[in-house]
Amino acid sequence: MLFRQLYDSESSTYTYLLADLELKEAILIDPVLEQVERDLKLLKELGLSLGYCLETHIHADHITGTGKLRELTGCMGIVSANAKADCANRHIQDEEDLELGSIVVEAIATPGHTDSHMAYLVNGERVLTGDALFIRGCGRTDFQSGDAGILYDSVTSRLFTLPDATLVYPAHDYRGQTVSTIGEEKQWNPRFAGRDRENFIQFMDNLNLPDPKKMMEAVPANEKCGRKLATIE
Amino acid sequence: MLFRQLYDSESSTYTYLLADLELKEAILIDPVLEQVERDLKLLKELGLSLGYCLETHIHADHITGTGKLRELTGCMGIVSANAKADCANRHIQDEEDLELGSIVVEAIATPGHTDSHMAYLVNGERVLTGDALFIRGCGRTDFQSGDAGILYDSVTSRLFTLPDATLVYPAHDYRGQTVSTIGEEKQWNPRFAGRDRENFIQFMDNLNLPDPKKMMEAVPANEKCGRKLATIE
Repeated sequence: MLFRQLYDSESSTYTYLLADLELKEAILIDPVLEQVERDLKLLKELGLSLGYCLETHIHADHITGTGKLRELTGCMGIVSANAKADCANRHIQDEEDLELGSIVVEAIATPGHTDSHMAYLVNGERVLTGDALFIRGCGRTDFQSGDAGILYDSVTSRLFTLPDATLVYPAHDYRGQTVSTIGEEKQWNPRFAGRDRENFIQFMDNLNLPDPKKMMEAVPANEKCGRKLATIE
Repeated sequence: MLFRQLYDSESSTYTYLLADLELKEAILIDPVLEQVERDLKLLKELGLSLGYCLETHIHADHITGTGKLRELTGCMGIVSANAKADCANRHIQDEEDLELGSIVVEAIATPGHTDSHMAYLVNGERVLTGDALFIRGCGRTDFQSGDAGILYDSVTSRLFTLPDATLVYPAHDYRGQTVSTIGEEKQWNPRFAGRDRENFIQFMDNLNLPDPKKMMEAVPANEKCGRKLATIE
């Protein structure tokens, strides 16, 4: 399997490229609209066709590249079960697998940042945690039907129960960190280590973060698979 | 072996952490002064002591964290042979190995960006290319005794002769790319693919780049292993 981590510095978003090198087919997870050209160039150079674009959730801080990539490559757009995106080709359910040759991507329902967030476990060895779990952090829970208690349950019961050696690849990082492990996060993530559910809820409720700059544009666009409203109407 | 790629967004620099998990000892390659606190925290959390700080070259775009890390941890500072840094504990020669438990780091003289630049091949499987080779790019050659012809020779005769599957980890990236391979760079790096030595020299001679913002501060500081002049005098 080929695995590549790609970064969008404007939104601090990680996009992941998985590919089966025999099939020469790829999956992009959480592509970013502004990076579509970069990602297509890389696919072309690696001799890969794009089978799927997969979203961990409906993003509020960037517009997904899925719509444009689907238009240009004919790939399938996959979103999590219950995500409000009728435009998607497929909704993936909790514990359902997306298979591509030697690659098995298992969906793990991890709501809390949004009400329909999924993490994806790749070949049992690395988990793309989206905005549920960051390296020494986690996604916010104060909009898009977010819920701190539910996020606490998702992280502690669905992610922290994976083997300690499982590699953690988040959808964002703001401090130059690229990878961690479940064992490390259980021990050192300051949002969860040594906090019970109540304490976590209280902490998250007092973050008082400003809305993401692109939120008013990004959420409705992402509910249309990343097509900007002006383009559609 | 533990391997971590860390990023400094201000200077777009990658720092690499290598560690032998039995010895619980680590090497940092190209640490950045402003990230010393982050790096020390990570070492502490991973239960690692810092054995060595290793530089690919005397940097012009950021101040190395080596001086501060050496002061705080007692690690050894290693620079490449001929690098003007008398403060270093050791100068590493071309083809010399730095060994730490299960880790073997082989120095590969790759001058051209500077006259004393080294790449480092880690356990024969991944090469930290410093500023000699970037993902689809390369370091500039217009200061610090840089020489485009010599860089062309370094890259084509010392790096592109490594096995195609060797992973390429550069010291900088400006487009959100984290890793490549020698095979990919031979085929797709626009600075080298399809260019002969003369054509490369001509191309590099016409880049007309502005000096790095921190150059006047960084070069003299890095010749003192990263201690700012004001601190020393």
